[in-house]
Amino acid sequence: MHHPDPTSPVFWQDTSVSKAQRSLRLGQKPMVLWLTGLSGAGKTSIANAVEAHLHALGHATYLLDGDNVRHGLCSDLGFSPEDRAENIRRIGEVARIMADAGLIVIASFISPSDAQRQLVRRRFDGGEFHEVYVSTPLDVCEQRDPKGLYKLARSGKLAQFTGISAAYEPPCAPELTIDTSARPLAECARDLVEYIMARQTGHQNL
Amino acid sequence: MHHPDPTSPVFWQDTSVSKAQRSLRLGQKPMVLWLTGLSGAGKTSIANAVEAHLHALGHATYLLDGDNVRHGLCSDLGFSPEDRAENIRRIGEVARIMADAGLIVIASFISPSDAQRQLVRRRFDGGEFHEVYVSTPLDVCEQRDPKGLYKLARSGKLAQFTGISAAYEPPCAPELTIDTSARPLAECARDLVEYIMARQTGHQNL
Repeated sequence: MHHPDPTSPVFWQDTSVSKAQRSLRLGQKPMVLWLTGLSGAGKTSIANAVEAHLHALGHATYLLDGDNVRHGLCSDLGFSPEDRAENIRRIGEVARIMADAGLIVIASFISPSDAQRQLVRRRFDGGEFHEVYVSTPLDVCEQRDPKGLYKLARSGKLAQFTGISAAYEPPCAPELTIDTSARPLAECARDLVEYIMARQTGHQNL
Repeated sequence: MHHPDPTSPVFWQDTSVSKAQRSLRLGQKPMVLWLTGLSGAGKTSIANAVEAHLHALGHATYLLDGDNVRHGLCSDLGFSPEDRAENIRRIGEVARIMADAGLIVIASFISPSDAQRQLVRRRFDGGEFHEVYVSTPLDVCEQRDPKGLYKLARSGKLAQFTGISAAYEPPCAPELTIDTSARPLAECARDLVEYIMARQTGHQNL
C-alpha cells in the first residue's frame, strides 16, 4: 500500500494531468483503430483478436462496438439516418476521450458513411486516428451471414440494410485495408497488430 | 520492441479481453468518484488535486468534467432540464465505459438532481460508483464566485442557476462528504485520496 503524503506539493497546485503524462504512465502512444466494413466482413473477429494480442503484449486497450454502446450511451438512438449519424458522432467522441486517457482504442462499426467517418477523423490529433477498411466483398459477407441478417434483408424483412438496401461508402484513403476473404483471420489480425506496433516504436517502452 | 508471434494461440480464438483482465493490467480496481455540489464548491480543484496525486502514485486515471464533455460528446445539448438530464446520463455512460476499461474515473459535475445521480449509480457494478458530496455552503460558494456567475444570477442575467434560481438536491447517502469551507483544500483532497486508496487495498499491487 502506498500512503499519500499530505505535505506533497501536488496538493498545492490546481494542475491537471495531461494526455502525455497518462500515455507515459501506460507506456504507449494513444491510438484509435477505426474498423469499417460490411456486416459479416470480419470486423469483430479481427477487433477481438487484435485486442487480445495487444493486451498480451501489455498494452492498455479498449474495444468499442455495438454491444457496449447501443445498450447504454446510444440507447436513445434508433436506425434512422439521423440517429445513425449521431451514433457514429458519439462513438467518435468517446474514442477521443479514451485516447485522451492514453488508451489504444479499437472501434468496430459498419459506419457506412464516408463523410461521417471523416468528421470523426477530424476530431483527432494528427497520427492518432487510423481508418482500417475491412474490405471483404459483399458476396463473401452474404455467404457467411453469421447473424442471418442478409437473408432477412434480401427477403425484405429488414429495411435499410447496408450493402443490400443501403449504401456502403468505402474509405477514400484508409490507413490499412484488410480483406478477410483472401487470407485466414489470424493473418489479417496479425497485419493490424504489426501496423499498430510499428507506430508504437520509439515510444516509451513498457 | 515486442514482435507479435503469428503462431500465438491468441489469434485463433474469438475471445474478448475482460474488465478483470484490463484492471489486472493496470494494477488497480476500477472506480468512479462522482463529485457533486454547487458551483464554486471546490469540485474541480479537488478533482485535479486528487487526479494528480493518484497519477503520482502510478494509477491510471481520467477526469471527466465540463471541459472535455460539453464541447464534444454533449455539444448538441443545451441547458434545458431535459438536456441537463441527458448530459448527466451520457457522462454516466462514458464513466461506465471507462471503468470497464479499468480506469479510476473522477467525474466533476454540479449534477443537481438526486434522481439523475441515482440513475447513474444504478448503471454500475456494486462498489464501483462512489458519490462524493462537496457540501461547501451556498454563502461560501457565492462569496468565492470564481467565475462571477453568482453575481450574474443574482442580477437576473443568468437563468436557472443552481443554488439561486434552480434547486440543488443534496445526496441522500453519499459515500463521502467534503466541506471545503471547513478545512484547507489540501486536506479535503487528501481525504478523498485516502478514501480511494483504502478501497484499492487488497487489490493487485502496481
